[in-house]
Order: sequence, then structure tokens, then C-alpha cells
Amino acid sequence: MLREDVTEAIRAAVFEELASAGYARMSIEGIARRAGVGKTAVYRRWRSKLHLVLDLVSAIAVQGLPAPDTGSLEGDLRLLYEVTSRALRHPVASQVLPDLQAEAARNPEIAEALRKALREGQDGVAKGIVTAAETRGELRPGIDHALALDLISGPLYWRSVVIRNPKLPKDYLESLTRTTTAALKAL
Amino acid sequence: MLREDVTEAIRAAVFEELASAGYARMSIEGIARRAGVGKTAVYRRWRSKLHLVLDLVSAIAVQGLPAPDTGSLEGDLRLLYEVTSRALRHPVASQVLPDLQAEAARNPEIAEALRKALREGQDGVAKGIVTAAETRGELRPGIDHALALDLISGPLYWRSVVIRNPKLPKDYLESLTRTTTAALKAL
Repeated sequence: MLREDVTEAIRAAVFEELASAGYARMSIEGIARRAGVGKTAVYRRWRSKLHLVLDLVSAIAVQGLPAPDTGSLEGDLRLLYEVTSRALRHPVASQVLPDLQAEAARNPEIAEALRKALREGQDGVAKGIVTAAETRGELRPGIDHALALDLISGPLYWRSVVIRNPKLPKDYLESLTRTTTAALKAL
Repeated sequence: MLREDVTEAIRAAVFEELASAGYARMSIEGIARRAGVGKTAVYRRWRSKLHLVLDLVSAIAVQGLPAPDTGSLEGDLRLLYEVTSRALRHPVASQVLPDLQAEAARNPEIAEALRKALREGQDGVAKGIVTAAETRGELRPGIDHALALDLISGPLYWRSVVIRNPKLPKDYLESLTRTTTAALKAL
């Protein structure tokens, strides 16, 4: 294998091991075996399994979500929910996210990496939507951005990841968009 | 130790082990050691660590949250948020909940126990608040209860457990109550 192929094989193996075994049970041995490489090949690239996972989380965050720009708050929210609900159905989100969250509760390095990934991903996009709506005069300028992001991101996450009911009723995203817009306008 | 004291000592040890080691790393040996009893004392009461944790989750769910009854939707929500935000600052919530959630992603028994605990706890109380508001005419009768519960529970959970920023600004719960009421009225 070429050096880059080995790196990619290891990254793919980490995702699979994370999803099936979880962070706590995952081992460098298991990752190497799944990637078809020796343990040294892993350790040459990453110091520990913590560093491997932090590297992956950062890589995903940088990719980011597409920033909607439909010209209206409701249009932007609707598009964000469409993309997010699809992302939350992916095993990376539904299995790996709760797992990293559990680790974050006892590992400040993972907690900080996750916070950074959220700021550059979901929360970053939501912040762009709110700022654009303020500029257009749809939202009062100077509203509490942190609370706005909680109102935008919380309900869908609660339904998809906490209640674990990813099959959403037909009109769900539409109703969520309408009610969240009302909440933001009351800020 | 009396038989009941042993049971209580084991339960307390499970909470401590869950918070410090997490579900995946926790062992019956570690629990027995922390409780100051033999492994057999644990196995005589629970078949496995899965059954031990399921039993604890059910016990907490039955205790439940107090159901607010202030006479208004805003008053009830405000009280619910007060109680919930305090509960989410407790290590059981901030460490053990994400941990069980991670396990739920790969263990249907834990997923079902958590769903049941939520239905009887947070979501059960929120449902009572929504139903009372419908009866009083504050909310349109027949609104989508599942979405209402997502709107009520999602934002505070996102802020406290996902973003892990449990220190809330002074007016946070008040603004959250006002905006969530607006969202529910738009349902």
C-alpha cells in the first residue's frame, strides 16, 4: 500500500471500530487489524487512540455543512433541517456522536475538540442564518445568539439522537421550521 | 451488612463507577470492590452489568420529576426548566446520561429502557404541561405532542449536555421560557 492509502485505510477502520465497538472498547490493535496494517503503521501516524479520534473529528468539522442562502429565515432554516436530519441518520452521527459525547464528559481534550467541531459545523451555519436574518430585518438586531443556536439545533437533536426516533413524520421539518421561526422572533 | 444495605451499597457503587469509568469500562469486580462486598453478592441480585444499569435507570424514572401546576403555560415551563437545569448539573445526568446514550446506540435493551425512562420523566412532565395548556385554551387543542416535547426539551439539553455549557447566563431560563411559549403557540 502507498503511504497515503495506509492513512486512509486506518481512518476508515477507526470509523468502523468507533461505530461497532465504541471509543472505550476500541483498541489500536483492532484498528490495525481492520485496516490490514501493522500496529506500528498506526503509531507512526498518531500517538494514541485519543489523538486519532481528535484528528478525525477536526477533519469532519473542517468539511462543514453547506451554508443555506435562500433569502429568508424560514427558507434557510428549512434547508438546514433538511441537511441536518439526513446527516443525523448516518451511523457516524447516530453512533459515534453519542459515544464521543460520553467520552467528553470525562476527557476535556475530547470535549474541547467536539465544541470546536460544533462551532465550525452545525452552530457555525446556524449563526450565519441568524446574522443574515438580523441584516434583513427579520430578527431584532443584537439578539442572544447562543440561545438562538440552542433553539435552532436542540429540538431535532433531541428527537433524532436522544429519543432516537429518526423516522420523522411527513410534515415534521415544516412544522419545526415554522415554530422555530416564531421562537426566534420572540427573542 | 443487612441484605438491604448491601443492595443499597451496590447501587451507590454502580453510580460512582458509571460516572468515573463509564458503562463500557465498568466491571462487576470494580462495583463489588467499591461497594465492599463480594462479586457473588452482586450476581445474586443482578444477572449482569446490563441488568444492574437497566434496574437503576427504571428506578430513577419512577421517582420522576415534580409536575408543575402554576396555572399558566409560561409559569409551568419556567418551573420545569428550573428543575431540569438543576438536574442536568448533577453528575448522574452530565456523565451517566451521555454514557447510557452511547450504549443505547448499540444495545436495543438500553435504548428501550432509556426511552421508557424519558417517557415517564422529562417527556411525561412536558406532556402534562402541554395537555393542561390545551385544556385552558392557551394552546390549540390537538397539536402535535411529539414535536411540542422536542421544542420544550431540546434546547436546554443541547446547551447543557451537547455544548456542555452548564453555566447559564442570568436571564437564560426566562428567555427560553418566553421563546418556547411562542414556538408552542405557533404549532
